[in-house]
Amino acid sequence: MEFRDFNVLPSCKQLAQLARKPYDLTAPGALGPERIKQYTASVCGFDFLYATQRLDNRTLDLLQQLADEAGLVEQFLAMKSGRTMNRIEGFASENRPVLHTACRDIFSSAPCNPEATSQAGEQLARLKNFLLELDQGKIVNHRGESYTTMVQVGIGGSDLGPRALYMALKRYQSAGRSARFIANVDPDDTAEILDNVDLSRTLFNVVSKSGTTLETLTNEQMVRSALEDAGLDPARHLLSVTGAGSPMDDPRRYLRSFHMFDYIGGRYSATSMVGGVTLGFTLGYDAFVEILKGAHAVDVAAEKKDVRANVPLLMALVGIWNRNFLGHTTVAILPYSQALLRFPAHLQQCDMESNGKSVTRKGQPVGWDTGPVIWGEPGTNGQHAFYQLLHQGTTVVPAEFIGFRQSQYGRDIDVDGTTSQQKLVANMLAQSLALAAGQENDNPNRRFAGNRPSSVLIADRLTPFAMGALLALYENKIAYQGFCWNINSFDQEGVQLGKVLATLVLQEMAADSMGKGGVLDKKSPEYTFLKTAGCLKNPQE
Amino acid sequence: MEFRDFNVLPSCKQLAQLARKPYDLTAPGALGPERIKQYTASVCGFDFLYATQRLDNRTLDLLQQLADEAGLVEQFLAMKSGRTMNRIEGFASENRPVLHTACRDIFSSAPCNPEATSQAGEQLARLKNFLLELDQGKIVNHRGESYTTMVQVGIGGSDLGPRALYMALKRYQSAGRSARFIANVDPDDTAEILDNVDLSRTLFNVVSKSGTTLETLTNEQMVRSALEDAGLDPARHLLSVTGAGSPMDDPRRYLRSFHMFDYIGGRYSATSMVGGVTLGFTLGYDAFVEILKGAHAVDVAAEKKDVRANVPLLMALVGIWNRNFLGHTTVAILPYSQALLRFPAHLQQCDMESNGKSVTRKGQPVGWDTGPVIWGEPGTNGQHAFYQLLHQGTTVVPAEFIGFRQSQYGRDIDVDGTTSQQKLVANMLAQSLALAAGQENDNPNRRFAGNRPSSVLIADRLTPFAMGALLALYENKIAYQGFCWNINSFDQEGVQLGKVLATLVLQEMAADSMGKGGVLDKKSPEYTFLKTAGCLKNPQE
Repeated sequence: MEFRDFNVLPSCKQLAQLARKPYDLTAPGALGPERIKQYTASVCGFDFLYATQRLDNRTLDLLQQLADEAGLVEQFLAMKSGRTMNRIEGFASENRPVLHTACRDIFSSAPCNPEATSQAGEQLARLKNFLLELDQGKIVNHRGESYTTMVQVGIGGSDLGPRALYMALKRYQSAGRSARFIANVDPDDTAEILDNVDLSRTLFNVVSKSGTTLETLTNEQMVRSALEDAGLDPARHLLSVTGAGSPMDDPRRYLRSFHMFDYIGGRYSATSMVGGVTLGFTLGYDAFVEILKGAHAVDVAAEKKDVRANVPLLMALVGIWNRNFLGHTTVAILPYSQALLRFPAHLQQCDMESNGKSVTRKGQPVGWDTGPVIWGEPGTNGQHAFYQLLHQGTTVVPAEFIGFRQSQYGRDIDVDGTTSQQKLVANMLAQSLALAAGQENDNPNRRFAGNRPSSVLIADRLTPFAMGALLALYENKIAYQGFCWNINSFDQEGVQLGKVLATLVLQEMAADSMGKGGVLDKKSPEYTFLKTAGCLKNPQE
Repeated sequence: MEFRDFNVLPSCKQLAQLARKPYDLTAPGALGPERIKQYTASVCGFDFLYATQRLDNRTLDLLQQLADEAGLVEQFLAMKSGRTMNRIEGFASENRPVLHTACRDIFSSAPCNPEATSQAGEQLARLKNFLLELDQGKIVNHRGESYTTMVQVGIGGSDLGPRALYMALKRYQSAGRSARFIANVDPDDTAEILDNVDLSRTLFNVVSKSGTTLETLTNEQMVRSALEDAGLDPARHLLSVTGAGSPMDDPRRYLRSFHMFDYIGGRYSATSMVGGVTLGFTLGYDAFVEILKGAHAVDVAAEKKDVRANVPLLMALVGIWNRNFLGHTTVAILPYSQALLRFPAHLQQCDMESNGKSVTRKGQPVGWDTGPVIWGEPGTNGQHAFYQLLHQGTTVVPAEFIGFRQSQYGRDIDVDGTTSQQKLVANMLAQSLALAAGQENDNPNRRFAGNRPSSVLIADRLTPFAMGALLALYENKIAYQGFCWNINSFDQEGVQLGKVLATLVLQEMAADSMGKGGVLDKKSPEYTFLKTAGCLKNPQE
């Protein structure tokens, strides 16, 4: 399999040509019944409506050609089977397979990568057993009481995905169980949470693959101190999820350790033990398995070569059409579901850390745009906030709507003949159409230019299965885009420089606190910046 | 005062010229001690460090000229004094003064607009009295118990600002008092909150200027039903903040009503009763007054003509330099403070709803870019999420860092010679420098191009006064940018079309639920979209 640069693919030139006059959504009859029906695809309970994108059959044919020329499905299959997809040819790089899909390949009789799936299965069995021991009262606190709260301590991929999923599925949590999350090195974050849980009945689930993440270790220290101050034994209250053999893989210091593997990147780890422990504790083991089932179903559906029938691939290609050919720099993720409040933040990491890259898999500078800026908030809230710019701003923002026909709690109220859930969905559909069609008006300030692209993902209800499917739809969309752009979506070298500089600055602050000479040149930007910001107690000279 | 178009100002042409070769932050010595010190300004306890922007003294001189040519400070003073700044010349528009600054002009012996300030003072006195009655046990529930929780029911400006401020200042809340917020028409949002408060000791503060906001009225209905189901009298548990004479200004149905005025836009209303009631209840009256004092101090400091000394004006102009001359479409707001978690969401509304516009104040299409896309999450969390793209993506994102030298709780831990708070601030400063300076490397994947602009706002501690100041810094920044772009930052016509279409779609759904013929043409995009999305029970034809 040869990786080809995006801009040399023949379909690219033709798409660029086509983009000079993209489909006009504001023309009379542009959104006819046939188009709306035809531009709808389905996958694992979700319908994907994309008639409100600025594309037509000619565009889709070329996007199919693009997918074929770049060998996208082949690359996806190679990833699932364990090829070393996380690397840069000819340069030092992580050089690893990418196997988050293996975590949910457990339902398959012939898994794509049997070894990784067997490792995932082992951890899952250990989790099942641990949860059973909790349920049966075999694991209890020093007073013989059950644990009621799990606080996940982790940052980035060890926080955002699990947190987004927990909030999405909170409605299904077992009676008497709940979760909290500590991520930020901001001491106030930790203090606020430690103040508001019953320490004696809380398990702290510390998550770090390397076992060396600065924020997480610091927060773990704060947690250990708080437990000790309360006369509790930390070894009875702390769990860890970490790589085998890491400093955190230590049965003397943790009640139980679960393993994560170096072939699963943090931002793709929600379906590994990184998400499993807290989600299993709060929602129950079966619900976590349902999440895995939904994700697995999408992983399988993502293998189709026909772009019109492969929703994650289609989402990826529509995104590339908007990004590279129509020139849009951002994408708004707009879930019409309050439960999905933090899903955009998870996608921000998953997408921007994966595809915010500037070199190809051969180490050459890219000559095309890669990942866009991802942001978003739930509707209808956003309608009363930033939608003004979506409709009438000078920057066009492609939007991805996500909604459900039924609510989770099923408690609703009928006002003016419709339920709140109907109002929620009606608003979502209306926004997609309004952005596309626009509207003329004699008052220029009440004019809507239209032609603002969007699509809608809709399912019956936000269940654990649906959440797993939605997660995998986006994970696979993101991977497909990276393959197409010929970048390595699985490393994150861009976070290193900030870490190095922060370490230098911290050494200076430590020396300053002790009244000792520091490590920085007094004329260096770092030193002057620290001093000017008023962050040194005893600035020199 | 004549409003002039942005692109005809002489300074604009010169700035465009200058932008062809902006200041190179990666050149040797580009971030010298003199520059860092010189490019720092201070206001009301905040230091603003902007040496890491791609500008120099020549740029600043031209930005000064731009401010003078556009009469920015004159426009700001006109706004504060009550001129009709919310209008479009020659077309139907809201035609109102813009007087959110009057809410905090109460500390001035000669307020800019005495009438509005006197109205604000009256409401404030009523709030003080109400809070006193609660404290003294004169207002209690039917069992004679005090109220412990306030749930604010509102959306958009009636939610985001008050919620962001409450979360920012939660640390200061009075013992036994807390707040929750219901915004979304999503019935699950309301259900989750109603499940988790003690209704008998909860006050519901329903906020809508018009008294007709769909989401808010629907949620109020759910709240009233829940209270009645619990055998409680809604009139004893509901407050309202609304315009005088609105349907919600009704003493029979509300325990107490506070007034908001049509010269204060929702997104600028956090310092009116819209924020005051909930913040006063939870933090205490004096803390709310401190917020007003901080905001007022900035309102006064924002009158300076010298752009180098007027921080909100300087922030506005630096933003315009990045947006219109360097061509950046988004701005990341990155608070290194977990308490400011929802401040970016508030700014998203305040900025994007104000400046996401396409016509001038004369109703002409703008020929220049207006408001950028605003987004952001707290650091250090973001470093482990989307910073990869900030450092190595193909799209440059100007960043605005916000941080504090001390934590709120004052509970911290020393690891490796520094506290968590020091780690937080060190990371923030290091990120700003890393984005600016970049770094060479033989491995192209470990190369940082640098020249990614940012600035830092830093204060001692996030107190009520500091929060008020920070709020006003951004409110005034946003207003200044709107003045400069010659747009009306105070209306929101762009939200109307979606509302109209949603109403049509809802009428169809209501008819469908009753098995009656609907209102929509069966061939219309709205009908087909609804049907294709599976949202009709009895689709016709």
